Amino acid sequence: MRGAPLIGVAAALAVAAEARRSDPSRVRKDTSRAIDSLGSARPTAVNLGWAMSRMSRLLQSTDDDSAAAALEREALAIFDEDRAACDRIAGAGLALIPDGATILTICNTGFLATGGTGTALAIVYRAQSVGRVKRVYVPETRPLLQGGRLTAWELASAGVPFKLIADGAIGAALRSGVDLAIIGADRIAANGDTANKIGSLPLALACKRFRIPLYVAAPLTTFDLFTADGSQIPIEERDGEEVRRFRRSRIADPAAPVFNPAFDVVEADLIQGFITDRGLFHTPYRFTEGMTNASGEKVLFREA
Amino acid sequence: MRGAPLIGVAAALAVAAEARRSDPSRVRKDTSRAIDSLGSARPTAVNLGWAMSRMSRLLQSTDDDSAAAALEREALAIFDEDRAACDRIAGAGLALIPDGATILTICNTGFLATGGTGTALAIVYRAQSVGRVKRVYVPETRPLLQGGRLTAWELASAGVPFKLIADGAIGAALRSGVDLAIIGADRIAANGDTANKIGSLPLALACKRFRIPLYVAAPLTTFDLFTADGSQIPIEERDGEEVRRFRRSRIADPAAPVFNPAFDVVEADLIQGFITDRGLFHTPYRFTEGMTNASGEKVLFREA
Repeated sequence: MRGAPLIGVAAALAVAAEARRSDPSRVRKDTSRAIDSLGSARPTAVNLGWAMSRMSRLLQSTDDDSAAAALEREALAIFDEDRAACDRIAGAGLALIPDGATILTICNTGFLATGGTGTALAIVYRAQSVGRVKRVYVPETRPLLQGGRLTAWELASAGVPFKLIADGAIGAALRSGVDLAIIGADRIAANGDTANKIGSLPLALACKRFRIPLYVAAPLTTFDLFTADGSQIPIEERDGEEVRRFRRSRIADPAAPVFNPAFDVVEADLIQGFITDRGLFHTPYRFTEGMTNASGEKVLFREA
Repeated sequence: MRGAPLIGVAAALAVAAEARRSDPSRVRKDTSRAIDSLGSARPTAVNLGWAMSRMSRLLQSTDDDSAAAALEREALAIFDEDRAACDRIAGAGLALIPDGATILTICNTGFLATGGTGTALAIVYRAQSVGRVKRVYVPETRPLLQGGRLTAWELASAGVPFKLIADGAIGAALRSGVDLAIIGADRIAANGDTANKIGSLPLALACKRFRIPLYVAAPLTTFDLFTADGSQIPIEERDGEEVRRFRRSRIADPAAPVFNPAFDVVEADLIQGFITDRGLFHTPYRFTEGMTNASGEKVLFREA
């Protein structure tokens, strides 16, 4: 299970499933344990913590007998809201896509990564539906190859013209002519620094070099106002075998030391703007609406 | 066969072998054909063209009966000179390596890529021999994984501590603390723009972001004074199957379109200096000695 929004949706559904198979006398204990366990499974994506704290609050406000039904409604609501957020992101992003657009995106942010049509890829699909997409460049996104395995497949299925590239070829691809880059996000700190798939920082730097705007597409649930900046975002380091092997093929000796951070931090100065389910926000930020933080409180995003 | 210097050495030896098995009455025709065929096999690395034009000049200055022996002497001279150039590059580069150095290098530039100990990696080996190396970061270098397959193996064999990373992790690695990056080169244009393995441009941009100096290590035979700048360097595009699969593992559909440039161009403004067999040249250039161009003429490198 992957994709920051989909991780949140799936964990909420898993909590609801746990509640349903639990006896009412144990539902509070079993469900709390599931929430704790799932909530700590992946440190970087904030959507997971957000979904789990929402399920936890719901659990606290219900009695044992109605908990399972209430948790299921809440999980399905999270699912529905994510699907609707994808549609609104697609709508907000469409305004940025010129006719005959060449777009670069990294990793996978489509219907395999969200409860709906996606974040960055949802915009591509919306633009394709009105005939604006000339081509999408797809970095393969090592080590787990979400670009080569998932995004290339999604785009081919949807009839969107694309070219797959090695991750190292992002500079050459941007130099050959790209209108804009759109990436997803796993967590966006209060100052706009954004954690996303490893490789996002070199991409952002290459965009800056060639004066190509880089946008981050994410629902507001990906914003974490309690994390001041990117240096405070916990970055998951994963097993070295992901790099030492390439699916069934071994590349390097099993004893070869590996540094395998799963996420990059892209600082806010490299980001042209955020495409969200509440509209497009250019940096410096000018959020005009209240947001709900991880504790369920309405907070106002700071104005730049 | 790979590695710009070794490609030149190996092609010269192949021409000599062709001359040896040829009858003196046909040696001129056979050898010329071998020179033309080998010389056009790889467009980007200039060492190949340089070695072939040197063999061609030698052929013109000899008679049919002594051609084979003369070509063999010339090929072995090219081999010996490359080996000596590696040693001089290592000596020139050592001055740049601090005690306890953490170094990042891309692709493979060691004894598997040259006639001697290498270019960028030769400097690492020299620094290791005097105890200055703390760690080397090794990007795996997709699509052909020369970093993961060759450099990791070379460094392990030589007892140099290293960490293998995905190509996308260059930014995260540099952010974690790196003293300098050293890369090889396939062709250096007259203005210092440098063609090297795909992925070198994102690496150079990340170095700039974190104010980490990037050096290019190459023999003078890699400088091409007849190419004005990087936009004039021919970039080899290779088969998309290199990206769609890795060895036995298929990533993407055989019909998936691929953009697979084998080399990046790193503009001179991103390069701190050149570590050559004639010493270290910081940009802007201050070459004080004559160089031999591809036609065998002595030319003075322009002063900046």
